[in-house]
Amino acid sequence: MELLKQRIRADGLVKAGNVLKVDSFLNHQMDISLFCEIGQEFKRLFGDCGVTKILTIEASGIGIAAVTAQFFNVPVVFAKKSQSKNIDGEVFTSRVESFTHGRVYDIIVSKKFLLPDDRVLLIDDFLAKGSALEGLCKLVEDSGATLVGAGIVIEKGFQEGGALIRGRGVRVESLAIVESMDDKTGEILFRD
Amino acid sequence: MELLKQRIRADGLVKAGNVLKVDSFLNHQMDISLFCEIGQEFKRLFGDCGVTKILTIEASGIGIAAVTAQFFNVPVVFAKKSQSKNIDGEVFTSRVESFTHGRVYDIIVSKKFLLPDDRVLLIDDFLAKGSALEGLCKLVEDSGATLVGAGIVIEKGFQEGGALIRGRGVRVESLAIVESMDDKTGEILFRD
Repeated sequence: MELLKQRIRADGLVKAGNVLKVDSFLNHQMDISLFCEIGQEFKRLFGDCGVTKILTIEASGIGIAAVTAQFFNVPVVFAKKSQSKNIDGEVFTSRVESFTHGRVYDIIVSKKFLLPDDRVLLIDDFLAKGSALEGLCKLVEDSGATLVGAGIVIEKGFQEGGALIRGRGVRVESLAIVESMDDKTGEILFRD
Repeated sequence: MELLKQRIRADGLVKAGNVLKVDSFLNHQMDISLFCEIGQEFKRLFGDCGVTKILTIEASGIGIAAVTAQFFNVPVVFAKKSQSKNIDGEVFTSRVESFTHGRVYDIIVSKKFLLPDDRVLLIDDFLAKGSALEGLCKLVEDSGATLVGAGIVIEKGFQEGGALIRGRGVRVESLAIVESMDDKTGEILFRD
């Protein structure tokens, strides 16, 4: 998605430790006009898949998923990162390791919101080592729903997540795949 | 907002301990069509206030804020609940006590995204004891930006948050104010 790549080149910051900061438009401040373009692109890619539900994970996937869902006319469910007393009853759960935060946590979704006849599209902002996306895949598998695929805004192509998830037979569509980046020069190269 | 009250009556569940579960449409599974109606209502209420930015807090405020922002054509910033290594540089910070999760945490916003000439609308799903909203107000005050007001989806009118925040001179518009609720009968009464 050319508009997205341009925006990453213009406003993304490459930091040491394979960190790509896009917090000015994607995951802290959110450019909702850009999100509309992203949502329409996901609709173009997955619009004929009979999606009944979008599943994402808190926090930075929620805005993209919510805007995208308008184009599919389906609800969004977001997986929560820790059990709160507002979630009771039965939940699907999966363990996720966060590369960004350096910790392991459980993600949960109420069983009421993932049903065997659902056709689920996963949406997330980043795909790097793939742990969060793998956790979401497992929640869908456990529910018996059909996993249509995963729509990712930015994939770090030099990390293993993309190969890991595609290797499981999941269709992954990333709107921008970073092939390499250099925190000395700030240069970002995209796969094409 | 009558549509919202109807939905709360139909799908909200009253639980012991003043808990109103609306996780089937508001804060776990999200009904994006309803969010569009909510966003338009916030636009009707705050559309003439020159809003330049919407500020919310992760996680359940983000979806509502993102959909609402489309009607204002402004970016959303969401306050984060803990420092991650993707946030560097200077941040505004505030301490919040969570009624739902029974703990105290810091919320932070990068100083880059709240500027003195911003006119900020706060958006959140719930107003109960008011700690989260008070924390957001403090972030705006610290930034020197103008606080236009707060748009809340559901206010628990029998708790002190509404009076606390309005008592600070902040315009609070809640789309549904629960006057009382009964976990024995499931009855929910709205303020009118």
